[in-house]
Amino acid sequence: MREDQATDGAAGERPRQAGRSEGALPQSRAPLWEALLAYRERNPARFHVPGHKGGTGLDPEAARLLGGVCEVDVTELAGLDDLHHAEGVIAEAERLAAACFGAERTRFLVGGSTAGNLALILAACKPGDVLLVQRDAHKSVFNGLMLAGARAVLLAPRIDPSAGLPCGLAPDDVERALEQYPNAAGLFVTDPNYYGFGTDLAPIVASAHRRGVPVLVDAAHGAHYGFHPGVPASPLAAGADAVVQSAHKMLPALTMGALLHLQGGLLDRAAVDRALAAIQSSSPSYPIMASLDLARRQMAARGEALLGEALETARLLRDGLAAMPWLETAEPAEPAKGRADGPAAGTEGGGVAGAGPVTRDPLKVTFRDRTGTLGGRELAAELEARGCFPEMADPVFVTLALGLSTSRDDIRRLLAALEGICSDFRLSEKELGEPIKNIYKSPSSRVGQGGAAVPEPVAFRFHRSDAGALRRVPPEKAVGAVCGAPVVPYPPGVPLLLPGETITAEAVRRLREWQSAGLGIHGLDQDGTIIIQTNGEQP
Amino acid sequence: MREDQATDGAAGERPRQAGRSEGALPQSRAPLWEALLAYRERNPARFHVPGHKGGTGLDPEAARLLGGVCEVDVTELAGLDDLHHAEGVIAEAERLAAACFGAERTRFLVGGSTAGNLALILAACKPGDVLLVQRDAHKSVFNGLMLAGARAVLLAPRIDPSAGLPCGLAPDDVERALEQYPNAAGLFVTDPNYYGFGTDLAPIVASAHRRGVPVLVDAAHGAHYGFHPGVPASPLAAGADAVVQSAHKMLPALTMGALLHLQGGLLDRAAVDRALAAIQSSSPSYPIMASLDLARRQMAARGEALLGEALETARLLRDGLAAMPWLETAEPAEPAKGRADGPAAGTEGGGVAGAGPVTRDPLKVTFRDRTGTLGGRELAAELEARGCFPEMADPVFVTLALGLSTSRDDIRRLLAALEGICSDFRLSEKELGEPIKNIYKSPSSRVGQGGAAVPEPVAFRFHRSDAGALRRVPPEKAVGAVCGAPVVPYPPGVPLLLPGETITAEAVRRLREWQSAGLGIHGLDQDGTIIIQTNGEQP
Repeated sequence: MREDQATDGAAGERPRQAGRSEGALPQSRAPLWEALLAYRERNPARFHVPGHKGGTGLDPEAARLLGGVCEVDVTELAGLDDLHHAEGVIAEAERLAAACFGAERTRFLVGGSTAGNLALILAACKPGDVLLVQRDAHKSVFNGLMLAGARAVLLAPRIDPSAGLPCGLAPDDVERALEQYPNAAGLFVTDPNYYGFGTDLAPIVASAHRRGVPVLVDAAHGAHYGFHPGVPASPLAAGADAVVQSAHKMLPALTMGALLHLQGGLLDRAAVDRALAAIQSSSPSYPIMASLDLARRQMAARGEALLGEALETARLLRDGLAAMPWLETAEPAEPAKGRADGPAAGTEGGGVAGAGPVTRDPLKVTFRDRTGTLGGRELAAELEARGCFPEMADPVFVTLALGLSTSRDDIRRLLAALEGICSDFRLSEKELGEPIKNIYKSPSSRVGQGGAAVPEPVAFRFHRSDAGALRRVPPEKAVGAVCGAPVVPYPPGVPLLLPGETITAEAVRRLREWQSAGLGIHGLDQDGTIIIQTNGEQP
Repeated sequence: MREDQATDGAAGERPRQAGRSEGALPQSRAPLWEALLAYRERNPARFHVPGHKGGTGLDPEAARLLGGVCEVDVTELAGLDDLHHAEGVIAEAERLAAACFGAERTRFLVGGSTAGNLALILAACKPGDVLLVQRDAHKSVFNGLMLAGARAVLLAPRIDPSAGLPCGLAPDDVERALEQYPNAAGLFVTDPNYYGFGTDLAPIVASAHRRGVPVLVDAAHGAHYGFHPGVPASPLAAGADAVVQSAHKMLPALTMGALLHLQGGLLDRAAVDRALAAIQSSSPSYPIMASLDLARRQMAARGEALLGEALETARLLRDGLAAMPWLETAEPAEPAKGRADGPAAGTEGGGVAGAGPVTRDPLKVTFRDRTGTLGGRELAAELEARGCFPEMADPVFVTLALGLSTSRDDIRRLLAALEGICSDFRLSEKELGEPIKNIYKSPSSRVGQGGAAVPEPVAFRFHRSDAGALRRVPPEKAVGAVCGAPVVPYPPGVPLLLPGETITAEAVRRLREWQSAGLGIHGLDQDGTIIIQTNGEQP
């Protein structure tokens, strides 16, 4: 039976209920996971959802792989708490996660970092409010602005001159934007980005806090940050007010499992809770929530040791790549010094316009074929044909995401695959090209222009093609028009075009470049048309 | 590597890519599941998310149950398509689902029926639009109205005089509301409700379509409808424009797996897609999506046979309950006649104010202790203590959800548990009470008053406690004030109080009744206070 309140006299019959509120559990416990195991051990007669009834309703072939998870895929039964009104084992698991990750309060997410980003923006912004937004944000940030009816001042990230990749906001740019918008509802930062690049957030947070502006951080790719001196510090350590992390990306949680951390008093926590309850499923997945509990337990017990091993594995990979002249890895202007003596490790000084050190995730490895023979997409396909599956590819680069359990055998397989590609395509006989700069330039032509004027706010809303204000046109006919819906290469999920922006010929050229490289584009209509506004966007 | 476009020359190396677009697959196939198996069989070196790397990163204890699912918990790799831009195996799986469920287009949902309800309202409603809404809707419907900035005209459902439970809208009430709001953005219906009650939607749909108003149906609890003459017809057969179904509730999908079906031209499908892309995770769970593919394959192959067995099992249960005089099952005024000869099966005539037959899900069984000794909550706890876990309990009733794989052994265990409870509490020696009527009366005092005037539209928005317009007060001090945030007993997730409604003493009395019965209430603040508006709600 579903219920989520403190129990009455019948509590003695529910093994995981007793003593729960009598003090903090140690990090060696996993209260939600343990409660699921206790339920399973009762050999229950399941007159509740889900309909697979513990896996008995699956085809035998499916049961082989999904039968185990089905045994703990349950619902808000007695003793299993309620994510949206947590008072029992989920609340305990969230408290353990907060203590482990260094937050004052942590919420489990079952809708991925997407749910956290949406909820934070809904909680922080009233309709019409201005949010300062790092432009190379995930599309969920722009969707959050649409749902909240808020306006964004889009701040261009710096571009690392060596890697040609975005590497976080320059503190000076943030300061200038805050001077112009001191009453902004918040500053929304993405750090690290998909490529594992970012910046030291401490000066940026200090700048915002001087004006009482909360700093919200999409750290989807950085859930492992702060657990080892060889990786950058957590944004929480830099003072960020809210941090969203995908525990499924770099920690061993199930996909869609994420964490929302809060600290300080600048954000209304009740509003965050209400927004999460509105955005996320009212039937959240217990296996996903339990996998968050398990990932936290693992990080608390062995996080530093596991990361130490992973960093060794990553070094093995980088050493192997460095021995292949036809490959170039994307590293920040000042290469990582491998400092392992403090929270500033993983940051590099100098080399980037706008100052502020570049941080880099050592577990993300991005490289390209310097001979120009294989684009990122082709190189990835060749790796896949050899059984090695990268995280993503863009027209130039391939990115690998290593994890806590990536093995040395995986690395050997990858290096052998690259040797095979080099041999098959005779790459060592080709001329080596120059390092590519600013390949990841945005079509807004603002990205990379440090010191540019702070732009005007842009409003976002859901557009309806039947409202008379939108039209679908082929991209080449859209040049000069105002964009009506975000156009997002995915991955990395950084918008190429945003609603309210004027569509330039350069933007269309880059769109076609991505398409011809065989990469996915979200936001075009099914016939490949682009959505434009036929009247101006008025907030 | 993530990519989702048609492949190039390298396609031959990806087993599931070839021949995909050369014609419709048969229902015996499960293209998404098969693609996951094919990936797994390559023994891949996983340099992609999720971070558990196929389960190798899990604690051994967790791997025992979650290891299998981790092997197919992957990301948008080559050949695995992209939910938000489906062109490959996900698009094929969705097409097979559409054909199987009788829709023109079906979308897979990984955020539960919540995601479908939110997306439909966002797609159908511009800010300020009026949506006609059946009042006993799931809270996600009210959250959708908040996100869309739309207003709701709340229509009271009929109350079945025998069961005392809501049983869908009266066609006359719908017709009257449509006369008053002929330009409504849509009519949002919940059918069946949590108790498995509903109505024949055909006259309601006809009424709405005469005015070009689309009918959106939350059929979360009715994914099995239409697959056997012994269960009610699908809302799609009644002509509904959009139908949301939780495949994890009554079909054997994983929790959060749901379906959104569309037909006809009254809804903008591109807007639905955009809303789904905004609301749902950009890293959707492949196991959940694959479980939708598997559930569809199972229903296509053996749905009628499986339902036939389940109906037999349900009959066994009802016969057993009927033999216990201390128990009363909640059945519609005219008991089910078990007609098995056409699409109208499962509907009963007469007995309900406002006309229109009552439909009932035979796989939902709701009962109470007629002696009044045990409330629903206590009865459920006693069943749980005996290893039988009901779907939900309210102050009076216990509801069981049977499934396609509920066994006769499960039924025997339940009946034995009830015999034990009867004996332990000497219930057969107690006096039998009268059937309870209208127990599920809403505090708005509109529910059950057939023929009431069509109410004024109510606006919904996210409320911020720091906005000066809201206050938290103890419930008793809130009488006479305007509600500021929904107060929702969960389950069944039907709001007790909605923003914009005046809080009555009766509403507070019922809130306290639910709380003292130990039932969960969403929407109160953590200190138990209720959120009220200190100024009127102006759309």
